[in-house]
Amino acid sequence: MAPVKVFGPAQSTNVARVLVCLEEVGAEYEVVNVDFKVKEHKSPEHLKRNPFGQIPAFQDGDLYLFESRAIGKYILRKYKTSEVDLLREGNLEEAAMVDVWTEVETHQFNPALSPIVFQCIINPALHGIPTNQKVVDETVEKLKKVLEVYEARLSESMYLAGNFVSFADLSHFSYTFYFMVTPYASLFDSYPHVKAWWERLVARPSIKKLGAGMAPPTPKA
Amino acid sequence: MAPVKVFGPAQSTNVARVLVCLEEVGAEYEVVNVDFKVKEHKSPEHLKRNPFGQIPAFQDGDLYLFESRAIGKYILRKYKTSEVDLLREGNLEEAAMVDVWTEVETHQFNPALSPIVFQCIINPALHGIPTNQKVVDETVEKLKKVLEVYEARLSESMYLAGNFVSFADLSHFSYTFYFMVTPYASLFDSYPHVKAWWERLVARPSIKKLGAGMAPPTPKA
Repeated sequence: MAPVKVFGPAQSTNVARVLVCLEEVGAEYEVVNVDFKVKEHKSPEHLKRNPFGQIPAFQDGDLYLFESRAIGKYILRKYKTSEVDLLREGNLEEAAMVDVWTEVETHQFNPALSPIVFQCIINPALHGIPTNQKVVDETVEKLKKVLEVYEARLSESMYLAGNFVSFADLSHFSYTFYFMVTPYASLFDSYPHVKAWWERLVARPSIKKLGAGMAPPTPKA
Repeated sequence: MAPVKVFGPAQSTNVARVLVCLEEVGAEYEVVNVDFKVKEHKSPEHLKRNPFGQIPAFQDGDLYLFESRAIGKYILRKYKTSEVDLLREGNLEEAAMVDVWTEVETHQFNPALSPIVFQCIINPALHGIPTNQKVVDETVEKLKKVLEVYEARLSESMYLAGNFVSFADLSHFSYTFYFMVTPYASLFDSYPHVKAWWERLVARPSIKKLGAGMAPPTPKA
C-alpha cells in the first residue's frame, strides 16, 4: 500500500497538526512540499486537493481531504487500535469531551495564542513585517484568561478530555511549540498544571521527533 | 428519563446549532434561558456549565458539555439510528467528508458570512451599534469567493459531504437563516446550486420548526 501523502511544509503549524497524528499511530507517510514562493498553493493541481488554496492537503489513494482537524480525525479513526485510540468514539462521554476540548482549541485557545506566534515569529521572520506590540499585548491578556480555565481543567484531570491523552491535546501542539520560543513563553509558569501538561506532551516521541524539525525561522536581516 | 437541557436563548445562532440536531433526531429537550441582561452567563452557576461564560451549554443527567459543534456531535451519536445517521462515523470516507465540510463551515464559511449578520442585524438591533458598511463590503467579497467553492462542490453532490444530508449541512443553518433576511440575501441567487441546497435545507421539518421561532430582532428606534 502506498504511503499517505501530506501536502505542505512540515514546519507549518497546520501541517504539523496532521503529522503528529500520523506519528502517534505509526503510519507511513510522505510529506510533499508546496512552494509558496512560486504560488504553488494556488496552482490548478493544488486547488484540486484543497479548493481554498491552503495547506495542508492530504491524499490516501483516491481520497483527497483538507482542513487539518478533519484530516487528523480521519487518520486517528483509520489507524485506531485498542492501544492507540485518540478519539474514543466508542465511548459516548469520552468522545464528547474530546470534541469539547478540540473545539476549545479552535475557538478559545488558538485565537488567544496564535496571534502572538504570528507577531513574534512568523511575520518578522517570513514576511519581513515588524511585530505589532499592541496586538501582542491585547492577545496576552486574552491568553491569560484562557489559561486560567485550562489551569482549572488540568487540576482535575491529566489531559484536557480526561485522564487519557487525545486528539484534543495533540491539536494544541504546533502553535504552542512555536509560542514556547517567543518572549512570552514564561507566561505558562504561572499555571503549573498547564505547564506540567505541556511537559507531558513534549515528552511524547511523536512531538519530540516533529519538534526536532521545527526550529523557528530566524528573522530577516 | 429527564429530557436533556440546552442553556441559552433558542434564537441565538450557536444555540440553534444544537437545537437543529435535537430536532433532527427527535429527542426530547428543554431550553433554559440564560439572561444576558443580568449577566447570568457570567454567574458561578453558568460558569460551571461553560467555564468561558458563553452559550450554549448542555446537560444530559450528570454530563455537562459546551461548544455547540461538540454538543451537536454528542446528540447525533447518542440518538443515531440506521435512518438518522448524520455523522456517518461507521464509514471512514463519509465521516471524513462530514468532518471536512464541518471544518469548512467553521474556518471559511462562518468568518465570511457571520460578520454580515452581526453588522446588519445583531449589532443594530440588540446593541444599538450602527452597521459598519466597510466591514460589510469587505466581507461580501470574501463570501463570494467562499460561495464559488461551495457552488463547485454542490454541483457534484446534493449536500456538502456527499449525496446525503449531514451535520456539515445542518451546522450552516442558523447563521445562513439570519443572513437571508439581510439586504445581501440575493447574493445566493448567483450560485444556483448553493441556492438549491439552501432551499432543500429550509424545507426540512427541523429547520421549518426552529426558523418559525427565529424572527430577526427589530432595530432599536
